[in-house]
Amino acid sequence: MLVNCVLYGKDGRKLRDIGVDEIGTALAQNEGFVWVGLHEPDEPLLDRLQHQFGLHELAIEDAHRAHQRTKIETYGDSLFIAVHTAQTVEHRVAFGETHLFVGHNYLVSIRHDASLSYVPARRSCESSPELLALGTSYALYAVLDFIVDNYMPIVADFQNRLHELEHAILGGRFQQRTIVQLYELKKELVQLQLTMTPLQDIMSQLVRLYPGLIRDEVRPYFRDVGDHAARINETAGTIREMLTTAIDVNLALVGVAQNMVFKKIAGWGLLLTAPTMIASWYGMNFHDMPELLAPHGYLTVFACTVSVCVVLFILLKKTDWL
Amino acid sequence: MLVNCVLYGKDGRKLRDIGVDEIGTALAQNEGFVWVGLHEPDEPLLDRLQHQFGLHELAIEDAHRAHQRTKIETYGDSLFIAVHTAQTVEHRVAFGETHLFVGHNYLVSIRHDASLSYVPARRSCESSPELLALGTSYALYAVLDFIVDNYMPIVADFQNRLHELEHAILGGRFQQRTIVQLYELKKELVQLQLTMTPLQDIMSQLVRLYPGLIRDEVRPYFRDVGDHAARINETAGTIREMLTTAIDVNLALVGVAQNMVFKKIAGWGLLLTAPTMIASWYGMNFHDMPELLAPHGYLTVFACTVSVCVVLFILLKKTDWL
Amino acid sequence: MLVNCVLYGKDGRKLRDIGVDEIGTALAQNEGFVWVGLHEPDEPLLDRLQHQFGLHELAIEDAHRAHQRTKIETYGDSLFIAVHTAQTVEHRVAFGETHLFVGHNYLVSIRHDASLSYVPARRSCESSPELLALGTSYALYAVLDFIVDNYMPIVADFQNRLHELEHAILGGRFQQRTIVQLYELKKELVQLQLTMTPLQDIMSQLVRLYPGLIRDEVRPYFRDVGDHAARINETAGTIREMLTTAIDVNLALVGVAQNMVFKKIAGWGLLLTAPTMIASWYGMNFHDMPELLAPHGYLTVFACTVSVCVVLFILLKKTDWL
Amino acid sequence: MLVNCVLYGKDGRKLRDIGVDEIGTALAQNEGFVWVGLHEPDEPLLDRLQHQFGLHELAIEDAHRAHQRTKIETYGDSLFIAVHTAQTVEHRVAFGETHLFVGHNYLVSIRHDASLSYVPARRSCESSPELLALGTSYALYAVLDFIVDNYMPIVADFQNRLHELEHAILGGRFQQRTIVQLYELKKELVQLQLTMTPLQDIMSQLVRLYPGLIRDEVRPYFRDVGDHAARINETAGTIREMLTTAIDVNLALVGVAQNMVFKKIAGWGLLLTAPTMIASWYGMNFHDMPELLAPHGYLTVFACTVSVCVVLFILLKKTDWL
Amino acid sequence: MLVNCVLYGKDGRKLRDIGVDEIGTALAQNEGFVWVGLHEPDEPLLDRLQHQFGLHELAIEDAHRAHQRTKIETYGDSLFIAVHTAQTVEHRVAFGETHLFVGHNYLVSIRHDASLSYVPARRSCESSPELLALGTSYALYAVLDFIVDNYMPIVADFQNRLHELEHAILGGRFQQRTIVQLYELKKELVQLQLTMTPLQDIMSQLVRLYPGLIRDEVRPYFRDVGDHAARINETAGTIREMLTTAIDVNLALVGVAQNMVFKKIAGWGLLLTAPTMIASWYGMNFHDMPELLAPHGYLTVFACTVSVCVVLFILLKKTDWL
Repeated sequence: MLVNCVLYGKDGRKLRDIGVDEIGTALAQNEGFVWVGLHEPDEPLLDRLQHQFGLHELAIEDAHRAHQRTKIETYGDSLFIAVHTAQTVEHRVAFGETHLFVGHNYLVSIRHDASLSYVPARRSCESSPELLALGTSYALYAVLDFIVDNYMPIVADFQNRLHELEHAILGGRFQQRTIVQLYELKKELVQLQLTMTPLQDIMSQLVRLYPGLIRDEVRPYFRDVGDHAARINETAGTIREMLTTAIDVNLALVGVAQNMVFKKIAGWGLLLTAPTMIASWYGMNFHDMPELLAPHGYLTVFACTVSVCVVLFILLKKTDWL
Repeated sequence: MLVNCVLYGKDGRKLRDIGVDEIGTALAQNEGFVWVGLHEPDEPLLDRLQHQFGLHELAIEDAHRAHQRTKIETYGDSLFIAVHTAQTVEHRVAFGETHLFVGHNYLVSIRHDASLSYVPARRSCESSPELLALGTSYALYAVLDFIVDNYMPIVADFQNRLHELEHAILGGRFQQRTIVQLYELKKELVQLQLTMTPLQDIMSQLVRLYPGLIRDEVRPYFRDVGDHAARINETAGTIREMLTTAIDVNLALVGVAQNMVFKKIAGWGLLLTAPTMIASWYGMNFHDMPELLAPHGYLTVFACTVSVCVVLFILLKKTDWL
Repeated sequence: MLVNCVLYGKDGRKLRDIGVDEIGTALAQNEGFVWVGLHEPDEPLLDRLQHQFGLHELAIEDAHRAHQRTKIETYGDSLFIAVHTAQTVEHRVAFGETHLFVGHNYLVSIRHDASLSYVPARRSCESSPELLALGTSYALYAVLDFIVDNYMPIVADFQNRLHELEHAILGGRFQQRTIVQLYELKKELVQLQLTMTPLQDIMSQLVRLYPGLIRDEVRPYFRDVGDHAARINETAGTIREMLTTAIDVNLALVGVAQNMVFKKIAGWGLLLTAPTMIASWYGMNFHDMPELLAPHGYLTVFACTVSVCVVLFILLKKTDWL
Repeated sequence: MLVNCVLYGKDGRKLRDIGVDEIGTALAQNEGFVWVGLHEPDEPLLDRLQHQFGLHELAIEDAHRAHQRTKIETYGDSLFIAVHTAQTVEHRVAFGETHLFVGHNYLVSIRHDASLSYVPARRSCESSPELLALGTSYALYAVLDFIVDNYMPIVADFQNRLHELEHAILGGRFQQRTIVQLYELKKELVQLQLTMTPLQDIMSQLVRLYPGLIRDEVRPYFRDVGDHAARINETAGTIREMLTTAIDVNLALVGVAQNMVFKKIAGWGLLLTAPTMIASWYGMNFHDMPELLAPHGYLTVFACTVSVCVVLFILLKKTDWL
Repeated sequence: MLVNCVLYGKDGRKLRDIGVDEIGTALAQNEGFVWVGLHEPDEPLLDRLQHQFGLHELAIEDAHRAHQRTKIETYGDSLFIAVHTAQTVEHRVAFGETHLFVGHNYLVSIRHDASLSYVPARRSCESSPELLALGTSYALYAVLDFIVDNYMPIVADFQNRLHELEHAILGGRFQQRTIVQLYELKKELVQLQLTMTPLQDIMSQLVRLYPGLIRDEVRPYFRDVGDHAARINETAGTIREMLTTAIDVNLALVGVAQNMVFKKIAGWGLLLTAPTMIASWYGMNFHDMPELLAPHGYLTVFACTVSVCVVLFILLKKTDWL
C-alpha cells in the first residue's frame, strides 16, 4: 500500500504529492528529492518503484519478503537498509520490519508487520525545512531516529518487569509463573539485542562511510542515533545479566527454603513420634508391668510425656528445627 | 558415480553432455565452461578428473575422503570449497558433504553421504542462460544457494522443537524424555553452527576476493547467500541460548515443584500422625486411667480427634502445606 | 545553577570571577581560559553558554538530559565528554552524571543528580598555577582525576561486602538475606563496570589523540587516571568473578547441608521407630503369647529395647547418620 | 639417545648414516641435508649438536627440559618448534613432547616421554625421494603430519567415551562412576585443546612465513596439517560443549528422578500409615466402645481398611505418586 | 631501605658499592651502569633517587604507593615497570610488588610487602660479567626471570591442591571444608592470572619495543621469560577450568548421593513400618477376632511378619532401595 509519495524542493520545502509513475519525470526536472512511504506493498507496486529508481533485483526481492536481518548493503550508488522495529501491542512486544532504499535524490521506506507509521517523523521534518534541505540523508536520520526512539519505552518496560521479577524472587515467592515470566523476558531481550547490535553497526557506518549519500552535516545526527541504540543495547545487556543472576540466585534460595522445610517436617515429626513411642510402650500387654499398677502411674507418665515434649520443643526451636 | 557432465557455451546455453575424457579437448575448442556433477566417485574417476583439470593432489585426496571441515582453499588459479549439507531424513537431520572445484572454465561438484541432488539448481540455471553466461561463478552461486536454502526448513523444524520443549518445561511437565530431546536438539544445533559459521566466512571471501574467478556481477548474489547463512546462524544461536536458559529454568522449576511435594508429604503425614498419637495414648494399659471409664469418654476423644484433624487440615491448607 | 565561572590567565593564576555573558569579551581580550562549573542548569543558562562558546545543538541537548552513556565526542574543535560519578549516600552507591565541554580556552562542567562538587579539584589546581598554566587540558585532568578517585572508597566498600558475604556463605549460614545482598552487590558491580570500561577508553584516547586540545605534558597524567580506572575495573571484575563462584559454592554447600539434614532426620526416625515397633508387637492381644507371661518378660524386653537403641545409636553415629 | 642421523642428497635420496661429529664436515662438502632423530638425549649429546649446528643456548636449554609449551620460535635463521604428542597407552591418553630444530640443511627431532618413534615418517619420506628433494621443510611436514595424525584415534576414542556417557546419563543411570569418567574426559579434552590451538597457529605460520626455510611447494602440505589440527580441535570443542550440557542435563534428570522417588516414598508411606491409624484407633482401651462389641465389628473394620487401602492405591497410582 | 647500590663497568664487572648521592658523578665519569636495590624506601630516599636520575614525578608517586597494577610505562627515555611477586609464606600465597626504573645506565628495583630479595639474581649476574656487559637490559632480565621463576613452585602447589580437591570430590567426600578450600584456590588463581596476563604483555613488549634501552642480544631472554609466564598462566587457566568443572560435578554427585540417601531412608522406613502395622492390627480390642484365639495364631502371625520382612528386604535390596 502506498502511504505517501512527496516531492521536496532543494530548500527542503514540500512541493507536492506525486504519483509513483511521475517520479522519474519529476526528479529529472527538479533538484530536490522524493520521499516514498509504503506499507506491505504488493509486487506490482514494488516493480514500478524498481523501474522508477533502477533498484537491484536482489534488494527488491529482500524488500518484498519480510524476515530480513538488520543490515546495510550498497547496490551501486544506492543503499539498502533493513531494520527491525518494535512497539508494545496489548502488553506484549511486537516486532516489525522496515526496509529503506536511499539514493541521492530518493528515500523509500517499506514497513512490514506491526509497525508505527512514519508520518510523525515526516511531519517533524517538514516543520524544519532548513534541516530537510540537507537532503535524503536527513530524512533517513529522521526515520531511523523515530525507530530507535520507539525502543525506549520497551526497554523501560523490560526494566519494570525485571524489577517485579527481582521482587518476587528475592522476596522468596517462587512460583511457576515467576519463572515463566523470567523465561519470556529473556527471550524478548535476546531478540532485542539481535536487532540492536547490528543497528549500532549501521549507525557507525553511516557516521563514517558513504560520502556521496550522507552529508557531513548529518553525520553527528547519526552518531546520536547510534548512541541511543548503544544505550538501549547496554541496558538490555544489563537486564540480561541480572536475569541470569536471578535464575542462579533463585536456585540458591529454593535450596535454602528446602532446608527450612525439611527441618520443620523433621522437627514436628519428632515432636509427635516421641509421645507415640511412650504410649506404645505402655500399651504392651505384659502381665507384670509394675508401672501400670503403680499409684499415680498414669499421671507420672502423663507428666513425663508432657515434659519430654516441652523440652523437645524448646530444643528444636533453639536449633532452628521448628 | 558421474551424475552429469555438461558443456555450456559462452552465452550460458547448454551445448551438450560430454564424457569425462573429452573435457580437455572440448574446453580447448570452446570458450564456455564445463559443469560436472559427481556422487561419491571412486578413485579412478577422480584420477581422470584430476588429469583433465590439473587439480592438486592434496585437494583430490580431500575430495575422496569425506569428513572435511567447511573450508575454502586456493590451489594455484583454482578454488577448492568443502561445505556441509543437511536434509531431514525420517524426522532426523542427516548431514552430508559437498566438495566443489572451481576454475575459470569448470565447476566440479562432488556429493558425499545424505545429500540432495543438485539437478534442480542446474535446471534453474539452464532456464536463465543470461545469468549462466556469467560463467562458473554463477553456477557456483546456484549450488551454494541451493545448499543454504536447504537449511531453512531444518532451522524452522528446530524452532518448532524448541517451542514444544518450552511448552513441556514451562508447563511443568518434567520428564526424562523432554530432557533427552533437549540434549539432542542442542547437539544438532552445535553441529549446524559448526557448519554455518565457516560458511559465512566463505561467502564473505567470495564477495571480496578471487578476482580472476568471481565475476563482479555475481558478488551481490554471494552476499545474499552469506546473508541467508548469517540468518540461519543467528536463529540457531538464539535457539541455543534459549535452550541453555530452558535447562536453567527447568532446574528452578524442579526445585519449586520439589518444595511443593515435600510440603504435601509433610502435611498429610502430620494429618495422619496426630490421630495415631491420640489413639496410641488411650491404648495404654494403666489400671487407673480415668478417661477410659468416664461416661462418654470415647465419644469425647472421638470428637476431639476429629476437631484436631479438621483444625490441622484448615491450618495446613492456609499455609500451603497441603 | 551556576556554581562558578572563573577566568584564568596564561600563567595559570586566577584573574577574576566573571559573568556568563562576559565570557566572549573576556576571552577575546585575554590569552587565558575560562572554567565554568554548573549544577543541573536550566535551559536558558545552557542557551547562553551555547551562544558564548558556539557549542553544537546535539551536545547541548545531551547535556540537558541526564542519562547519557559514558562517551567522548568531538564537535568541530571542541570535545564533549560524558562520565558517570559515584558516591556513597546512606550506605548505598548513588550514581550521578557529569558532562564536560572542552575547548582550547574553556572548560564547562555540568553536574547532574547525586554528585560531589568539583570545588576541591578546582582549589587544588589554583594552588599550583604552574600546572594550571598548561591550560584546559590540565583542568580537565583535575576533574577526571577527582571523579575516578571518588570511585576508590566505593570499590573498597564492595570488597568489604564481598568479604562479609564470603564469611556468611563459607561459614554455612545460608540465609535469604545473604543471597539478597549478593544479588544487590552484583547489580552495583555491573553498573560500575558499565561506567569504568568506557572511561578507560576515554582516558586512552586522551593519552593519544586530540593534539590541538591536549598538551603533551598533560598526557602522562591522563595515563595515570586511566590506570586508576583500569585498577578499579579489574578489582570490580575480580569481585564479580568471585561472586559468581560464591553463588555456585553456596549451591554446593546447601546440597551438602541438605544431605546432613536428611541423614539426621532418618537417623533419629530410626531410633524412635525401633522401640515403637517392639512395643507395638507386645501390644498384640493374642491369647497365647508366651513372652507376656514369662517371668521377667517385661524386664527382658525392656533390656532388649534399650540395647537395640544403644547399638543403633552407636552404629548411626559411626556412619555419620546422626 | 641418538635414534638415527642420516645425510640426504640434494635429490632427496639417503646418502648414508653419519656420526654426530661428522655432521659439520658432511654438510660443508654436500648440498643435501641432515636429519637427526633423538630420544631423551643427555646433555653432552645436546652440547655436541649445539656445536655442530650453532644452536642458541636458550633453545638447547628448552630442548633439554621437557614441559615446554607448544610454540614456534626463530633463532637467527633457524626455527625451534615444540609440540606435544599423544598416544593411547593402556586405555589412557599419554602425552609426550617433541622439539624440532629446523635449519636450511638440517632437521633435528628430540622426543621426550611417551612418544612414538618417527621412523615410520622417515621411511615414508625415503620412499618418495622426489618429495624429500624439497629439503628440510618437507621432512618437517612429514614429522608434524605424523604427530597430528596420531591424535586422530584419540579424538575418536573421546567421541566413543562421550557416547557412552550420554547413554548412561540420558538413560537415567546416574552413578558416581559416570560422573568421574565425565570429569576425566573433560580434563583430557582441556589438555588436548591446549596443545591443538597453538599447533594450528604454528601451522598457519608455516603456511605464510619463514621464506628462507619453507619452500613454497611445501606450504599447501602445512595447510593440510593445520586443517587436520583444526578439525581435531573443533571436534574436541564440540565434545567439550556437549559434556557441559551433559552435566547440566544430568542435574535436571537427577532432580526429576528425585521428585519421583519422593512421591513413591510418600505414596507407600501413606498406604501403610492409613491401616496403622485405624488399627491404633481400635486398640484404645475405652470401656465403652460400641464398635468393639458390635456383631461383625471386626469384619466391618477389616473390610473398611482394605477398601481404604485399595482406594488410596488407585488414587495414588492415578496421580503418579506410586 | 637501601639494600645495595653498585656501580658496574662497561665490561659487566662490579666496580664498587657507591652511595646514592654519588650516583650522578659516578655515571658522569664512567660508561658502565648503576644497579640500585631498595626495599620499602621512605619518601626522602625516593626524592634523592628522583633527583639523581631525573625520574618523573608520577612514576615516583606510583613507586611510593604499593598497589599498582602490573604495567609498563615510558617516561621520556626511561621505563617504569610494576610487577607483582609471589612467594609461599606459611602455606599461603603472599603477593608482593616490585617497581623497576630502567634507564640506559641505571636499574632501580623497589620491593614492597612480602617479596624475596633480588640478591641471588644480582649474584648470578655478577658471576657471568660477559652477560652483564650487555647492560641494564640484562640486569632487568635477571630480575624479571627471578620473579617469574618464583611463581613456579606456587603453580605446582596449586596443582597439588587441585589434585587433593579432585580426590575429595570424586571420592564422594563432600565436606564443607573441601568447598571452602576450592573457593580459596579459585580466589588465588584469579589473582595469579590478573598478574600473569599483563606480565606476558610486558615481556612481549620488551621483545619487540624500546630499541634504545633493550639490546637485541637480550631480546630472546625476555621471550624466554614471557614463555614461562605464558606457561604459568596456561596452567592456572587449566586449573581454573577444572575447578569450575569440579564444582559442577560436585553438585551432580551430591544429587546422586541424595537420591541414594532417600532410597535408604525410605527402604528402612518401609521395613520397620510393615511389622508395626501388623502388630497394631492385632492390638485391636475387638471382642471377636478369631485370629487371636486360634491355636498357633501368634506363631502364624510371627512367621508371616518375618516372611514379609524378609521378602521386602530382598525386594528392596534388588531394586537398590536399601
